[in-house]
Amino acid sequence: MRLRVDLLPHGNYPDVVVIIDVLRATTTAVTYLERGADALLLTATPEIALNLRTEGSPYLLGGERGGLPIPGFDFGNSPVEAAGQNFTGKTVVMNTTNGTGAAHTAAQSGKHIFLAALTNAHAAARRARAAATEEIAIVCAGTDEHVGLEDVYAAGVLAEYLLAMGEFSIDDGARIALTVRRNGGNPLEALGSSGHGQHLMRLGLGEDVRAAAGLSTSTIVPTLTHGDTPDGTLKFTVG
Amino acid sequence: MRLRVDLLPHGNYPDVVVIIDVLRATTTAVTYLERGADALLLTATPEIALNLRTEGSPYLLGGERGGLPIPGFDFGNSPVEAAGQNFTGKTVVMNTTNGTGAAHTAAQSGKHIFLAALTNAHAAARRARAAATEEIAIVCAGTDEHVGLEDVYAAGVLAEYLLAMGEFSIDDGARIALTVRRNGGNPLEALGSSGHGQHLMRLGLGEDVRAAAGLSTSTIVPTLTHGDTPDGTLKFTVG
Repeated sequence: MRLRVDLLPHGNYPDVVVIIDVLRATTTAVTYLERGADALLLTATPEIALNLRTEGSPYLLGGERGGLPIPGFDFGNSPVEAAGQNFTGKTVVMNTTNGTGAAHTAAQSGKHIFLAALTNAHAAARRARAAATEEIAIVCAGTDEHVGLEDVYAAGVLAEYLLAMGEFSIDDGARIALTVRRNGGNPLEALGSSGHGQHLMRLGLGEDVRAAAGLSTSTIVPTLTHGDTPDGTLKFTVG
Repeated sequence: MRLRVDLLPHGNYPDVVVIIDVLRATTTAVTYLERGADALLLTATPEIALNLRTEGSPYLLGGERGGLPIPGFDFGNSPVEAAGQNFTGKTVVMNTTNGTGAAHTAAQSGKHIFLAALTNAHAAARRARAAATEEIAIVCAGTDEHVGLEDVYAAGVLAEYLLAMGEFSIDDGARIALTVRRNGGNPLEALGSSGHGQHLMRLGLGEDVRAAAGLSTSTIVPTLTHGDTPDGTLKFTVG
């Protein structure tokens, strides 16, 4: 079994893909489902999300650009904000700067697509291991096409758990992620030292960084579910 | 001053760019100049290199694909092979899988372009620092669009030297490279544990890996030199 970590999204995935966007898309995605949402629809663009919200539609919209809420959206991609709400019976339409794009890239080729964060790291590693037949690719969403330390650190956390479960041949991306995880301090230190973590703290969103640093606080793993979904969207459920 | 490490080549560089392809393009480039070559011409494709060698042309061709020599080329991108030759008065035309492409990407926007390896790390850091006015971007060539541990390690070595010379604001790529450098063992251990290092050792090219792990054995820094060069080539000299 191969374990591969892409420090930024690449093209082609033969088997299992685990998308990581710790600050904050995948952390928030876990929280929406944790708080009762039926499903998440990840859209390729903000426009697709806005077009889904017609009169009487069952959708709530969550997303951000550059860490700030998108005009016309209901929620701002904040795990803290999401944790204070009840989403029972709702579908949340998500569009974010990096995480939703990474999911769309992965879905073009991968067989099984999961969303992972530090908050569901144990559960995500188990689900990935159970589904994989040849390769687990952990894909870091990054920030504006630049590598994000927080995602690489979280990829290292998942890689540690996977290596505990069995033998893998690993690539250089996994070696780098493991080195960052093993030497990058505790999760809050790692997230707080990342460029994007510092950006969020400057925006007054330090509580989101703190929430995203919680290790395995949830067992929910958002899972790509095929079926009838609006064009340009990917549907994730608890799987 | 900003210090940025791109773990793979990206698009846009405003100022100084230092290209790293430790195994083996930039290491071999340093060796060609160390051994007397007048200049290096880095070509975008192998075909451009082959077309330059007409009857009586002053060019020698060096390059590889997947670690192996290119048919019709004189040399195979090996620092050990290059170290045994005298290139005085010659121009070497180079085309390699990743390093030459990274140089062409960087040259589209960067103001000052240098080639760096572990073997010229001190000198390359000094040259970059002296030339920069706003940003030093260290660009890791990687292998077939995947991050190469050996390049990230070498980027961390350069970053360490640069931080010794002055204050920089650093990005997450630099943070990751510094972590890999500080925790990845000595240069030979780091190169030997990389996927590409292992590939070269399996091809019987372990001596090249050993040569590439020599720290600051040269003070030569290949420097992009503008002027009259054949189409599709970049000319590097000792600057």
